[in-house]
Amino acid sequence: MADETLFQLLHTEVVAAAYGGGRGSGDEGQRTGLTVLESMGFRVGQGLAERLPRGALAFREELDTIKFLCRDLWGAVFQKQADNLRTNHQGTYILQDNNFPFLKQMARGQQYLEEAPKFLAFTCGLLRGTLSTLGFESSVTASVASLPACKFQVVIQKP
Amino acid sequence: MADETLFQLLHTEVVAAAYGGGRGSGDEGQRTGLTVLESMGFRVGQGLAERLPRGALAFREELDTIKFLCRDLWGAVFQKQADNLRTNHQGTYILQDNNFPFLKQMARGQQYLEEAPKFLAFTCGLLRGTLSTLGFESSVTASVASLPACKFQVVIQKP
Repeated sequence: MADETLFQLLHTEVVAAAYGGGRGSGDEGQRTGLTVLESMGFRVGQGLAERLPRGALAFREELDTIKFLCRDLWGAVFQKQADNLRTNHQGTYILQDNNFPFLKQMARGQQYLEEAPKFLAFTCGLLRGTLSTLGFESSVTASVASLPACKFQVVIQKP
Repeated sequence: MADETLFQLLHTEVVAAAYGGGRGSGDEGQRTGLTVLESMGFRVGQGLAERLPRGALAFREELDTIKFLCRDLWGAVFQKQADNLRTNHQGTYILQDNNFPFLKQMARGQQYLEEAPKFLAFTCGLLRGTLSTLGFESSVTASVASLPACKFQVVIQKP
């Protein structure tokens, strides 16, 4: 029984619950579901970051912190690293995962792309919550061009 | 970033969500919340059991299966084993955990006992779902006498 399976199964249930029971239908329900998932991710990210060894919180530059997400956060949550990181060196970062675990079980095909956001919202929140506890306010959005690859765009808010 | 933390943080969010937004207030809301959590646990348990190596599913006697829960399922979910297992040898089993992870963060004291069921419902479902996929229909209930210890009573339904 692999640990990552456990977390992924629970995540699947969380997504289903956020869209279940009549919730999540229509545009407004869709937005509510995404907000619920993003908020849960945010608090989990905060919780994870609060449990980091104290040294990990102290020294970090912005780019170091983003690299930490790609390597350590991705490692803890998905047992691998993010595949690519790009930045404009002005506070915008693109984290790319070519085989994103929460999208892997989805059927392939253009017609399923509209289902993808619900499997990305939690992770957007997770990134934003972790960053928040590490001292960086941000906005995080996700996009999918071709399943199961996706990109998370992190924009650090300047104080 | 420890994996068990991740799962426990998400579980905490799941419990909060099941009781959030006006749901979970009053006796009926309480029951609905418990049912939602138990159902999520059930499906996660099914999913875990479906992912077991095929050999693990084949040979098991009833008692072996329960021991498997105490050792392997507990190990996968809580990174330890259940502390005690008792049975009447007539299909009823008591799994005891003296320091149950989902109860550890709760404040101690008799007045908090009534809050405990919401932190046990998911695990009741997890046991029932795992057993179901392993070929045993059951009912699972939990009780707490003294935080953070708890007991899960599994009653196997005879065919």
